[in-house]
Amino acid sequence: MSTAVSPLAPKSSPTLPAIAGVRLATAAAGIRYKGRTDVLLAAFDEGTSVAGVLTRSLCPSAPVEWCRDRLAGGAIRALVVNSGNANAFTGKRGRAATALTAEITAQAVGCPEAEIFLASTGVIGEPLDATRFAGVMDGLVSAGRGDAWAAAAQAIMTTDTFPKLATRTAEIGGVTVTINGIAKGAGMIAPDMATMLAFVATDAAIAAPALQALLADAVERSFNCVTVDGDTSTSDTLLAFATGKAGNAPVADAADPALAGFAAAFEALLVELAQLVARDGEGARKFVTVEVEGAESDLSARKIALSIANSPLVKTAIAGEDANWGRVVMAVGKAGEPADRDRLSIRFGDIRVAHEGERDPSYDEAVTSAYMKEEEITIGVDLGLSAGRARVWTCDLTEGYIAINADYRS
Amino acid sequence: MSTAVSPLAPKSSPTLPAIAGVRLATAAAGIRYKGRTDVLLAAFDEGTSVAGVLTRSLCPSAPVEWCRDRLAGGAIRALVVNSGNANAFTGKRGRAATALTAEITAQAVGCPEAEIFLASTGVIGEPLDATRFAGVMDGLVSAGRGDAWAAAAQAIMTTDTFPKLATRTAEIGGVTVTINGIAKGAGMIAPDMATMLAFVATDAAIAAPALQALLADAVERSFNCVTVDGDTSTSDTLLAFATGKAGNAPVADAADPALAGFAAAFEALLVELAQLVARDGEGARKFVTVEVEGAESDLSARKIALSIANSPLVKTAIAGEDANWGRVVMAVGKAGEPADRDRLSIRFGDIRVAHEGERDPSYDEAVTSAYMKEEEITIGVDLGLSAGRARVWTCDLTEGYIAINADYRS
Repeated sequence: MSTAVSPLAPKSSPTLPAIAGVRLATAAAGIRYKGRTDVLLAAFDEGTSVAGVLTRSLCPSAPVEWCRDRLAGGAIRALVVNSGNANAFTGKRGRAATALTAEITAQAVGCPEAEIFLASTGVIGEPLDATRFAGVMDGLVSAGRGDAWAAAAQAIMTTDTFPKLATRTAEIGGVTVTINGIAKGAGMIAPDMATMLAFVATDAAIAAPALQALLADAVERSFNCVTVDGDTSTSDTLLAFATGKAGNAPVADAADPALAGFAAAFEALLVELAQLVARDGEGARKFVTVEVEGAESDLSARKIALSIANSPLVKTAIAGEDANWGRVVMAVGKAGEPADRDRLSIRFGDIRVAHEGERDPSYDEAVTSAYMKEEEITIGVDLGLSAGRARVWTCDLTEGYIAINADYRS
Repeated sequence: MSTAVSPLAPKSSPTLPAIAGVRLATAAAGIRYKGRTDVLLAAFDEGTSVAGVLTRSLCPSAPVEWCRDRLAGGAIRALVVNSGNANAFTGKRGRAATALTAEITAQAVGCPEAEIFLASTGVIGEPLDATRFAGVMDGLVSAGRGDAWAAAAQAIMTTDTFPKLATRTAEIGGVTVTINGIAKGAGMIAPDMATMLAFVATDAAIAAPALQALLADAVERSFNCVTVDGDTSTSDTLLAFATGKAGNAPVADAADPALAGFAAAFEALLVELAQLVARDGEGARKFVTVEVEGAESDLSARKIALSIANSPLVKTAIAGEDANWGRVVMAVGKAGEPADRDRLSIRFGDIRVAHEGERDPSYDEAVTSAYMKEEEITIGVDLGLSAGRARVWTCDLTEGYIAINADYRS
């Protein structure tokens, strides 16, 4: 596993304020790692609503199935997250482990098991020993603090090289509300979902169906627009919590105009977290934005952008600082979406390298090569067909990715 | 570019016999490389039928468009192939280059331009200087030999580390016929098509529509079942030629029982060539067969097999000799095809590692790890749903792939 922090990590991590109604605590339960925390308990006051988006994998982990069964209830009192073991493809024993974790937590927190949510990340196929949670749960409940976000983000890391945190404020009906989010994920990152785990909490009062609608909409332009290797986890989980402690008049409808500012801040926070995941792509040395416009539709644009962002040949060219725009043509061509080679324009940053189906007449290899040495690269594609557009984020593909993934279990 | 021969290359290359009605010659036209051949001319006797399968990329190269427009004619007198420049995304100049190449060839061979086929492989987006063919074409026509297959396979290589050749014989109505094939391709390899270029010639007398039907059927179980990196070239071209010189009674219908033996030999040859491509995957150290059974349909099985074969996480685990079957579960889950986690079985070679949705009770890490050290690895997946099955071939993903592709143009 990697130890050096990604060169694309932000220079500093934000300090997240407390969220009223949320208490966070972490512990070292020895699930897999030695000498580090690996369990997070987030406890919520009564009346907290929950929304979620889960992996579309047809082989989901036991905790994903657990959450899916409980989201309709819309209420949460506790979230338990462990790193080191994904409790995925663990069969009946996996279901038993989720049930035991929920039982231990319900007793310690004093709430129904139906209001407990679970997430696990790490190795697949190894049985998870949930009895380890019993030894630490009472301590987690009593140690809970509203501002322990940095520790929470640390405890859920696996191959991540830095913790991922973001915060925003917004106004709802004149009342200032806060939104905090943490995420983990560095590989096995692709729509849908983009990160393995992300949790967002706000003190706003928003009913569960409205929170769900906001989340489902914003995820399309954030986590579902980030990819590292095109692989989709069995465990991808994004949950949002609204404690209602800020004092705004409760909002029941996502379309309520009072939510406009909140929705924008919420989406911006999800975009920031999603970009942090791409910035921690395993072995990444360059942060890449792919912008597609002129497509038949926004969905078509996103498929083409992901075809480019997931292409090993595009990603290795960027790693080699090689302005190999021919591979971008290849990736557009293989996407299977409407495209007309002879209307296609491609740019690297602001440098147009190809236009109307051939190399731009003003193409200058030296200028383009100089741009490719930058740490943040934008690939722009204009299909020239219609108004569909999309933006996705990814990273380059380096020897570091191979080194990390060739011996992850060892 | 790589210089060492792939460790997965066959110990020896077959010597291909002459095919009556085919004359091969190669030359160094200086398209891109120094000190090696880069042009192949295959001239055919009058009456030779042609069939072809071309890339499904929506941004195809100029030669691919040229071939597509001429396949309906069903007749061929000459094939010109160059390496070093793909003549792809070269706009009007690309079309002019194909027209000029055909004009030069038609004059030298003495045939209509409609019976000339072209293929180019190499860098995308660089104009191809077709005037270079003028200087070598007359020499190519006069130097043609029926048995120059090894030189032909050499001339079409780009990042290939070894030439790819295969030969078979079959009987049609008591007459022995020969089939020879050559291929090139090592990266940008995925269905559809799997290799960048492959050419198969036989002395059998088979009408173009029948040859086309045989080819379209066999490609589904050969070239469309091999992948290196999931990328699809703008230039992928597979052409088959039948000179009719062997003396069998001409066959007009692919379903004619007289073709049964030929069809089997033809498919076996295509499978051998396709496997050679995977064995020369850029940076490959292990040859991987993915066998999926128990799927809802053969097509569904192939999609799942390709999801496994294209997963960077599966491929890096194999490179690391790590029996990380959890990643196989992930790849099954992300394929989007019918699957029931709790019926899934996975094996590495003959070692069943997972059964009915969890780790096999008899799983032995030491035994499995010993198997993973072998040079040829088979991943087997039984979905337990129905009778659909598929088999695909790929290679592992190593630092070598990154090194080759990060500086291909430089």
